[in-house]
Amino acid sequence: VRDSNPPSSEVPTSNLGAMEEDFPEFEPFEDEVQPRGFIPAGEGLMVQQVDMCQQQNKPNHYTTAYDTGNLVVRRGQEFVVRVTFSRPLADGDDFQLEFLIGSNPSASKGSLVVVTFNSRHSGPWMGQILEMQGESVLLGITPTPDAIVGKFRTYVAISAGSGMQRTKRDTSTDLYLLFNAWCPTDAVFLPDGAERSEYVLNDIGVINQGSVGAVSSRNWMYGQFERGVLDACIHILDASRMPIFNRGNIIQLIRKGSAMINSQDDNGVLVGNWSDDYSMGKPPTSWTGSVQILLQYANTGVPVCFAQCWVFAGVFNTFLRCLGIPSRVITNFNSAHDNTGNLKTELIFKADGTPDRRNTRDSIWNYHCWNEVFTVRPDLPNGLGGWQVVDSTPQETSDGHFRCGPAPVAAIKEGLLCHPFDCGFVFAEVNSDVVYQKRDRYGTLTPYRVDKTYVGQCIYTKAVGSSATHDITHTYKYPEGSADDERTMSRAEEYGCARDHSEVPETQLSVTISCEQVGLGHDVNLAMEFHNQGDVPRTVQANLAGSVVFYTGVIATHFKDQPFSVTLCVCAAEESVMLTVTAQEYMPHLGAQLCLHFVVTGQADDQSLIASKVVDLQTPGLQMQVSGSPQVKQEMVVTVTFTNPFSFPLQDVYVAMEGPGLMNQRSHLYRVIESQASISWSETFLPRLPGPRRLVAVLNCRNLHQVTATASSLHFTI
Amino acid sequence: VRDSNPPSSEVPTSNLGAMEEDFPEFEPFEDEVQPRGFIPAGEGLMVQQVDMCQQQNKPNHYTTAYDTGNLVVRRGQEFVVRVTFSRPLADGDDFQLEFLIGSNPSASKGSLVVVTFNSRHSGPWMGQILEMQGESVLLGITPTPDAIVGKFRTYVAISAGSGMQRTKRDTSTDLYLLFNAWCPTDAVFLPDGAERSEYVLNDIGVINQGSVGAVSSRNWMYGQFERGVLDACIHILDASRMPIFNRGNIIQLIRKGSAMINSQDDNGVLVGNWSDDYSMGKPPTSWTGSVQILLQYANTGVPVCFAQCWVFAGVFNTFLRCLGIPSRVITNFNSAHDNTGNLKTELIFKADGTPDRRNTRDSIWNYHCWNEVFTVRPDLPNGLGGWQVVDSTPQETSDGHFRCGPAPVAAIKEGLLCHPFDCGFVFAEVNSDVVYQKRDRYGTLTPYRVDKTYVGQCIYTKAVGSSATHDITHTYKYPEGSADDERTMSRAEEYGCARDHSEVPETQLSVTISCEQVGLGHDVNLAMEFHNQGDVPRTVQANLAGSVVFYTGVIATHFKDQPFSVTLCVCAAEESVMLTVTAQEYMPHLGAQLCLHFVVTGQADDQSLIASKVVDLQTPGLQMQVSGSPQVKQEMVVTVTFTNPFSFPLQDVYVAMEGPGLMNQRSHLYRVIESQASISWSETFLPRLPGPRRLVAVLNCRNLHQVTATASSLHFTI
Repeated sequence: VRDSNPPSSEVPTSNLGAMEEDFPEFEPFEDEVQPRGFIPAGEGLMVQQVDMCQQQNKPNHYTTAYDTGNLVVRRGQEFVVRVTFSRPLADGDDFQLEFLIGSNPSASKGSLVVVTFNSRHSGPWMGQILEMQGESVLLGITPTPDAIVGKFRTYVAISAGSGMQRTKRDTSTDLYLLFNAWCPTDAVFLPDGAERSEYVLNDIGVINQGSVGAVSSRNWMYGQFERGVLDACIHILDASRMPIFNRGNIIQLIRKGSAMINSQDDNGVLVGNWSDDYSMGKPPTSWTGSVQILLQYANTGVPVCFAQCWVFAGVFNTFLRCLGIPSRVITNFNSAHDNTGNLKTELIFKADGTPDRRNTRDSIWNYHCWNEVFTVRPDLPNGLGGWQVVDSTPQETSDGHFRCGPAPVAAIKEGLLCHPFDCGFVFAEVNSDVVYQKRDRYGTLTPYRVDKTYVGQCIYTKAVGSSATHDITHTYKYPEGSADDERTMSRAEEYGCARDHSEVPETQLSVTISCEQVGLGHDVNLAMEFHNQGDVPRTVQANLAGSVVFYTGVIATHFKDQPFSVTLCVCAAEESVMLTVTAQEYMPHLGAQLCLHFVVTGQADDQSLIASKVVDLQTPGLQMQVSGSPQVKQEMVVTVTFTNPFSFPLQDVYVAMEGPGLMNQRSHLYRVIESQASISWSETFLPRLPGPRRLVAVLNCRNLHQVTATASSLHFTI
Repeated sequence: VRDSNPPSSEVPTSNLGAMEEDFPEFEPFEDEVQPRGFIPAGEGLMVQQVDMCQQQNKPNHYTTAYDTGNLVVRRGQEFVVRVTFSRPLADGDDFQLEFLIGSNPSASKGSLVVVTFNSRHSGPWMGQILEMQGESVLLGITPTPDAIVGKFRTYVAISAGSGMQRTKRDTSTDLYLLFNAWCPTDAVFLPDGAERSEYVLNDIGVINQGSVGAVSSRNWMYGQFERGVLDACIHILDASRMPIFNRGNIIQLIRKGSAMINSQDDNGVLVGNWSDDYSMGKPPTSWTGSVQILLQYANTGVPVCFAQCWVFAGVFNTFLRCLGIPSRVITNFNSAHDNTGNLKTELIFKADGTPDRRNTRDSIWNYHCWNEVFTVRPDLPNGLGGWQVVDSTPQETSDGHFRCGPAPVAAIKEGLLCHPFDCGFVFAEVNSDVVYQKRDRYGTLTPYRVDKTYVGQCIYTKAVGSSATHDITHTYKYPEGSADDERTMSRAEEYGCARDHSEVPETQLSVTISCEQVGLGHDVNLAMEFHNQGDVPRTVQANLAGSVVFYTGVIATHFKDQPFSVTLCVCAAEESVMLTVTAQEYMPHLGAQLCLHFVVTGQADDQSLIASKVVDLQTPGLQMQVSGSPQVKQEMVVTVTFTNPFSFPLQDVYVAMEGPGLMNQRSHLYRVIESQASISWSETFLPRLPGPRRLVAVLNCRNLHQVTATASSLHFTI
């Protein structure tokens, strides 16, 4: 009992590429030899026309917005096909529809599906005749809710006595089959209608960035319905060499997707770059959305340069929604990045209290973006379905590949880290203890402070139906210190997470640091408050260090060190110190970053103090104005204006805008914008889709990033 | 609170390569400025000699057999180092030992370990002074039982007032640290002494092959102690770019190992080849053991050609035992290879009952070899520690990489498929239902027979302390049909395994096929028994198909089809049919295979019959004779003889032999061995290790494989 197949490494995976003939137009039955002169039933029956009934199917399947000439439907739900024969059907006529996907379709694997419309046994998809009018027959076909997702080829075959007579290959009858959040038996079923509209159908998003206490947001154009994007998403699966047979399995598909959105290991979509040199590509801040990225990848097959976490998350979200999977982009503020996968983020300091960067391996990102996918988890015990973390940013290798998840959010909350995939890594991102270690002269480490609340302070996503921020921290964590939280923590420890149990000396001295919002090019005024709870007066030898940092917390340039001292009286004594960091001090060091990081450290006898503050510099505004009547197919005009507020000229200024359903990306390059000079750029566009729509613009040059504008109160009618 | 490190993709991973200076020989303290003229304690103290005490440490750590000039010890257990100073130690003298691994050692990650011998706080490894004799101090050092495994560099540093004075880099004090199956707090602790001797220390193995009812076995020389093998195993980890920090984690290390032993994706050790063309390398059957393969890979960095499952499993076993991990090679007979990862292995047949190879995707291997590793699973709930399945044969991609496991054997037995890693895949290998589908003229499938017992019929490994076969089927499966078995099956279904629930027609006709053992070059006599349980006489239109197959069940050549018919009376009627397949029929088609596969199918009205039989052809013998006195370092002679029993000459006959601890691999090429001619080849060798030892020889040429000999009753004394 054996077969004759090649080892699985040769399993064919091509999908879009499979344009060759699937089988002969006439295929004689192998099992029967007809007597000469016998006129079988079905003789003379031929197919004249196959109509995929787009106008009727698309609204029922919520796929009207896809800008493609082919039918797009969702699995687990009936769609209709109208077949016109050469004559009305008669008793004994026998025909079937055949749907094929991939380069080597197989009935036993679900990639060759035969649908019949009578009592004859057929494949798993249901078929019924809905209506017969002369030669024309309206057929209803219901793919199973676990069907393979991708692009199927459609054939009609007539049993013509001695064999099957098939229609010719016709690309206009090709059919895209998607996941179905509307279908209760699909793994990605989402019961709430408003949530489906947001998490499957919304092609415009808002991604939170910045830092705790100074959360900002940017628009991201997912554009999953734009022309070519659906093909690009299927191309990604083909490029991943994921077997066709597995493409109906949501768990395997999203895990593969999280690996493919980054280019590491597998020549995937996006190249990460956290340096300050983007000369070999486009800066991560210059993208307005996913469409350009996906089309460029699909057209060239070469990874696109460059991305940082919100770009990975934005493009991954497009991929997911485009295939019909409910998904959203999440931002975790103070996201731990633990190199050893335990629950301690260890920050090493020298004996004098200043950071020992050479010996610190862990890091905490100001924020980190990932995705959540809504799906059941048939592979896990009950209670672990629902939102799942998937992350395509190449932070850490999960199983040797740069990928992460799906990890059930419920498993993170409960500390159930014993299930696949990567729950321990995500748990550490939101729950790590920050351990401050002092490294002595001999190289040994002593913990002197533990902060159990710093990491994962808040976890945000865009609200359903609005641009507001929705706080979902409670879905990841019980309240800090609650009995539930304790249970989660000890469970996590049971499953191998090494928590911190250091005994740290009690300290009577402390310091806080604060600062108002600062515009780019303005001075930074820092207020430091020193406290003494002890009964001995103290003199603190303090230091203020200033750096330009990436959002990953990695220092780009350390530009300032200012020692000072403070004397504190006993009993809850307080002293304030104000220090000003001038624009001249930091501006020359900014590069593409807009993030300053100040660390105040202090030493008094055996006690160490530390506090830090991230300052996100505010950028000047970009204005956007839309004029005309907001109607589909009525020309409108959008104007982007900008004034250079700086005392220096801006060079090679790249401005881009786009709006899904309104216009494709357009861009413009200004060689120079002199100090105080203004630019104004107008474009016309022809709206394609109705409903609430948005346009976004971004301005980018070597020394000015993250300048964006949005026109959002646009509601288009037909 | 941030650091200045590069993203983790740049985490340095080199180990053996890190031969540069780790730090300056004199490193001034950063935190202290000494007054001029101050004579600190420790002045004048210098290190004269560092002795790693190999004679004392190796027997205590069971590492005497490793053929290396450096000390090899196991973690979680004390080893001693003798340091000779320039003068006897005095009060106030302060020194420490430093152990470094990797190219960027870090105290917080366990890759830079400081050991002190007084009350001063130090790293996690314990240190104590065991003995002081003048200038000489004997130090005891106990690495933690979760320490990083690999090659450490050793330094002695003296606190010399204003800084640390270190010994120079000295490769002779480098230290290999291994996993420790003797240490109760090591993850790989194995309580039974006989099992440790077998699963960690035995460098010779037996691997079962063949087919159910005709199990054969071959010797495999693991050779984990041979010169260069330990370095080669560490080189594999370096080549995998596995971060140094993770190399103490048994789960991560074995999962990485399972990916690296095959070359797919990652340029690993071995290239799989299941074709019949090995012209670009050595045939899988020609290897005698792992040593040549590992040394060739380490020396060239290029994957070694070629392997099949027992070669992958044999080399992986060497890698595991060499690093101190208890492991064994397993053979699963009738191993399902399910392309979709469900619990059905679907075999498709045409309407006339003959196999439909074009449409069959799944396969069942006559046998498949994998490895088991003994370890706790701190990442999983209780009860899932113990033996874990790991598989390095590139059968199927786990998570996109060609790897598999660790999957707890206990989880397979209980159907607990909701835990990492790859439990579902292994479960299917031993539990799949075989579903026989008939494909009708329209392409639709109808199941007509389900066999729930065929797959995973027996699971064998070598017995502890002998060459016997040990049946461990019961560790993977409850008795078929028991209540426990039913519970396991329904649990597996709960976790997404799709079981077969087809209703198949009851059939009154059946057939069995049997055959005696057959020598290569002899005729095959097949006995087929037809039965009729029904009350209607039947005439069966039958067919006997004969093929040469790979051990994977894949057909190499289909060489025979013989139709015949049988008429059966009613009521338990039996008819026997004997058919002879002559040597002339199959010999021209054999290639490198020794495996014939016969399928008898039959059709009587609406009833289908099928039975199949694998025939492993027996090869002629190779003789091996050892003469001399079995004593370490006493020259001995081994002679290999062979007579060509065939009527044709054998060309380009490659003969190789080796024996771990006795002699390195030697080989000899005979251009031609004429029909009935004999060869005799003698080699001398100098035994290195005492105890029971074994020599193995293998003969290989284009039309004769799997000819082996063993000299096994050798017990060497010192």
